[in-house]
Amino acid sequence: NGKMVLFSGPCAVESYDICAQIAETLIAICSELDIQYVFKASFDKANRTSVDSFRSVGFEGALDVLARIKANYHVPIVTDIHESYQASPVSEVADALQIPAYLCRQTDLLVAAGNTGKTVKIKRGQFMAAEDMEYAVNKVKSTGNEKVCLTERGVSFGYHNLVVDMRSLPVMRQFAPVIFDVTHSVQQPGGMNGKSGGQREFAPYLARAAAATGVDGFFIETHPDPSKALSDGPNLIPLDKMKGFMEMLKTGFEYGNSFNNTIL
Amino acid sequence: NGKMVLFSGPCAVESYDICAQIAETLIAICSELDIQYVFKASFDKANRTSVDSFRSVGFEGALDVLARIKANYHVPIVTDIHESYQASPVSEVADALQIPAYLCRQTDLLVAAGNTGKTVKIKRGQFMAAEDMEYAVNKVKSTGNEKVCLTERGVSFGYHNLVVDMRSLPVMRQFAPVIFDVTHSVQQPGGMNGKSGGQREFAPYLARAAAATGVDGFFIETHPDPSKALSDGPNLIPLDKMKGFMEMLKTGFEYGNSFNNTIL
Amino acid sequence: NGKMVLFSGPCAVESYDICAQIAETLIAICSELDIQYVFKASFDKANRTSVDSFRSVGFEGALDVLARIKANYHVPIVTDIHESYQASPVSEVADALQIPAYLCRQTDLLVAAGNTGKTVKIKRGQFMAAEDMEYAVNKVKSTGNEKVCLTERGVSFGYHNLVVDMRSLPVMRQFAPVIFDVTHSVQQPGGMNGKSGGQREFAPYLARAAAATGVDGFFIETHPDPSKALSDGPNLIPLDKMKGFMEMLKTGFEYGNSFNNTIL
Amino acid sequence: NGKMVLFSGPCAVESYDICAQIAETLIAICSELDIQYVFKASFDKANRTSVDSFRSVGFEGALDVLARIKANYHVPIVTDIHESYQASPVSEVADALQIPAYLCRQTDLLVAAGNTGKTVKIKRGQFMAAEDMEYAVNKVKSTGNEKVCLTERGVSFGYHNLVVDMRSLPVMRQFAPVIFDVTHSVQQPGGMNGKSGGQREFAPYLARAAAATGVDGFFIETHPDPSKALSDGPNLIPLDKMKGFMEMLKTGFEYGNSFNNTIL
Repeated sequence: NGKMVLFSGPCAVESYDICAQIAETLIAICSELDIQYVFKASFDKANRTSVDSFRSVGFEGALDVLARIKANYHVPIVTDIHESYQASPVSEVADALQIPAYLCRQTDLLVAAGNTGKTVKIKRGQFMAAEDMEYAVNKVKSTGNEKVCLTERGVSFGYHNLVVDMRSLPVMRQFAPVIFDVTHSVQQPGGMNGKSGGQREFAPYLARAAAATGVDGFFIETHPDPSKALSDGPNLIPLDKMKGFMEMLKTGFEYGNSFNNTIL
Repeated sequence: NGKMVLFSGPCAVESYDICAQIAETLIAICSELDIQYVFKASFDKANRTSVDSFRSVGFEGALDVLARIKANYHVPIVTDIHESYQASPVSEVADALQIPAYLCRQTDLLVAAGNTGKTVKIKRGQFMAAEDMEYAVNKVKSTGNEKVCLTERGVSFGYHNLVVDMRSLPVMRQFAPVIFDVTHSVQQPGGMNGKSGGQREFAPYLARAAAATGVDGFFIETHPDPSKALSDGPNLIPLDKMKGFMEMLKTGFEYGNSFNNTIL
Repeated sequence: NGKMVLFSGPCAVESYDICAQIAETLIAICSELDIQYVFKASFDKANRTSVDSFRSVGFEGALDVLARIKANYHVPIVTDIHESYQASPVSEVADALQIPAYLCRQTDLLVAAGNTGKTVKIKRGQFMAAEDMEYAVNKVKSTGNEKVCLTERGVSFGYHNLVVDMRSLPVMRQFAPVIFDVTHSVQQPGGMNGKSGGQREFAPYLARAAAATGVDGFFIETHPDPSKALSDGPNLIPLDKMKGFMEMLKTGFEYGNSFNNTIL
Repeated sequence: NGKMVLFSGPCAVESYDICAQIAETLIAICSELDIQYVFKASFDKANRTSVDSFRSVGFEGALDVLARIKANYHVPIVTDIHESYQASPVSEVADALQIPAYLCRQTDLLVAAGNTGKTVKIKRGQFMAAEDMEYAVNKVKSTGNEKVCLTERGVSFGYHNLVVDMRSLPVMRQFAPVIFDVTHSVQQPGGMNGKSGGQREFAPYLARAAAATGVDGFFIETHPDPSKALSDGPNLIPLDKMKGFMEMLKTGFEYGNSFNNTIL
């Protein structure tokens, strides 16, 4: 409907209390700024660089936290799935299923997600041309489910580095609404001795650039104290900065979407 | 043991007869050239560009063909798995499980493969620095299974294109034996209007370059008639060219492995 | 002084009349929108893909046209130089000397340009990390000339393709004011059978993105009829679209520069 | 004539004595191994990262050293030129003029080099598709000079990194003989705080790979003591390792050129 969307929460389900603190803060911000809010947290970090990294508080436990957030705060929930058997149980709690970037070509996973009838949010692979994401969208739509959106998070540019090609945003909006992933666009894959690093200092620049290019919403991971986050700490936006950040993006969102781009 | 290895077969299990024809031909070539041969075919093509592409003759049917090839020709079998539930049933037939490139960071899949006790052959992600493949190897080894090998097939270089960085071969050999994938290194992802294209004409150049750099073996998809292959036709090596091709690579393999590379 | 700057004109000096038509139109637009205007045209296209491409109306003739534009319209002039001997004669007409991207590491050229005392506008090489442009700036400043600005026009991303990494803009602004080159950022080097191609349709998206990221001004090539332009036609902005284009960028410029970016 | 060629010497003309020591050593090696030898040294390093880096012992002085090496050792000489005015005086000493990679599209420079009637050796730009080097070759041939060769030294792959795409070698051999630049293919541009770094340890791998792919010769910078070299030290091959290195490459050269590559 043209309203700006925010998918946001902690990277992983760490505890009910942290999830609740974040949900409460973001609900208030989004209400004030007329933004549609969706709570995000991963129940499992299935592709960490190292086998020793934190993954999860457990599948059941994490889904239970998500269900309580949903019930207590009346917010829709998005979380990611990694194998097709997860689609059905996760969809009992989640309103939207996110397909991780590495898995955006896995037909079984896309079809299983589509079959739940929930919104399917596909992250663009770091190895995929934007125009090829149409095939991923079509795999979901082959199930009869038309509720699909895409997410930009940068493409491989040499080693240990991603670059955001802003041309991808209008290319992918031809196929589905497009969300800009602020957090993972400043990730530096693998570069930190068994963990991925990040460049949080570039987040406001890239987020404004994406807003001005034209997108349908944003994906932002946040934490009350990023230095204590169990995953992706170097690229999280501190929770107490989220209000200023969203005000900035709301202005950019309106600017970027005020052109029909047929100027040329 | 230093003997050159060849993983080869059709891209997908199309029929018993084609599999048998290929196995018979390659067994003879490898016997003559003193190469260790492993029959390869996929039971399912799980990440085709388009949902309409050929995937499989069916899970059960394809495994049955692989089992008959193994029984009738006394060759070890490698095939790829895509979700962790497949590791156990597939390992009843396969001697080696291949992890697809897009999935090389999926911890559950690597651990499930490791737990079978079979050899795990991990393809390097098109988005991974060679040195980060050590973490993938370690995920398998965390199960106590030390039988791991890696496979090079090119990294993302712009859109619809892969480039083989030959430096990756010695980097990855620090962690595990390295196989050079001749077929997918000349693939052009997504470029062909809903299918991946390929540049078969570059296969001999890249294969010789990899051999001279130094590898432990090769992965080559072949077909009696590539123009009729149900998958990856543009980059397959015709079966009747395989003998000359392997003679060429055997010479290069010996050249590449005759240096200790501490020359500098 | 924080005022938005526009460097704009035809790609090459084709004739006095076309230059005059463009200067007159852009002077009026910039006056209305409070933009500082600099007239740009190349006296020679020294690095065309093919030796048969149009280069110039001649060194003397082209400088003469630039001098007449300057005298008749009272606008400052920027033009590019390619070898160090050109710096001195060109600086008799030009107020700013542009160093082409391929030449941004040529010490003699940078020093010769610096020695003229004119503003030196250095385009970032398609092969240079943004932070390494500090060395190019320092080569000019080694002459005692502090009037330097940098220009972003995309970096090599695979073959026949450039990508604009918006992170480069704040990185380079640490060293000097940064101009975003709208025209060449949508160029496709070499791809068109002996000529470079272009994607004019992406120009408004990338220009807005750069504005929102934060820059000091823009470089835009224009022509009354791009289909008849003697160089770079596929990426020129039509002259009659320039007013709407500049209104769009002025809004983005103010948005992008209204943050101190210490939000995080 | 199909004989392997070696262009080799110190990076820069540091002194007559070092040049003479290198020439004498390499002449003996090439004579023993039936390799055609060309002495290489730069009279000026015109595009160092930083303005403070060593450039030259002076134009006249450096040309004089090259002339004495030529006279005393009866070897042909190659050196690079950076602006068109240098072509004529340098060609009085040099038998081949090398066009630096950044300058491979500069029409005036290529034409000036062509007009000397000497061999023109063009390095491929780090930003150029291999097939586009045909236009650079044609710029030289437009002068009536058919003596052109091309040199591969890697393309931009992300920041501070080059990758050698071995497919480029057969592509460029369609237009002219191709030399593989061992030294600069392992360069890391700009990465070392104002200097370019290098990865000498990869030189034997990439050199063997290029040899096996198929080339006409090699370009290798060497020094009796790389740690004391005034330029490019981290990627030079120590002079006392050159004999073993060339033996290795001679074998690879014969292997790579023994196929007509119409196998497929």
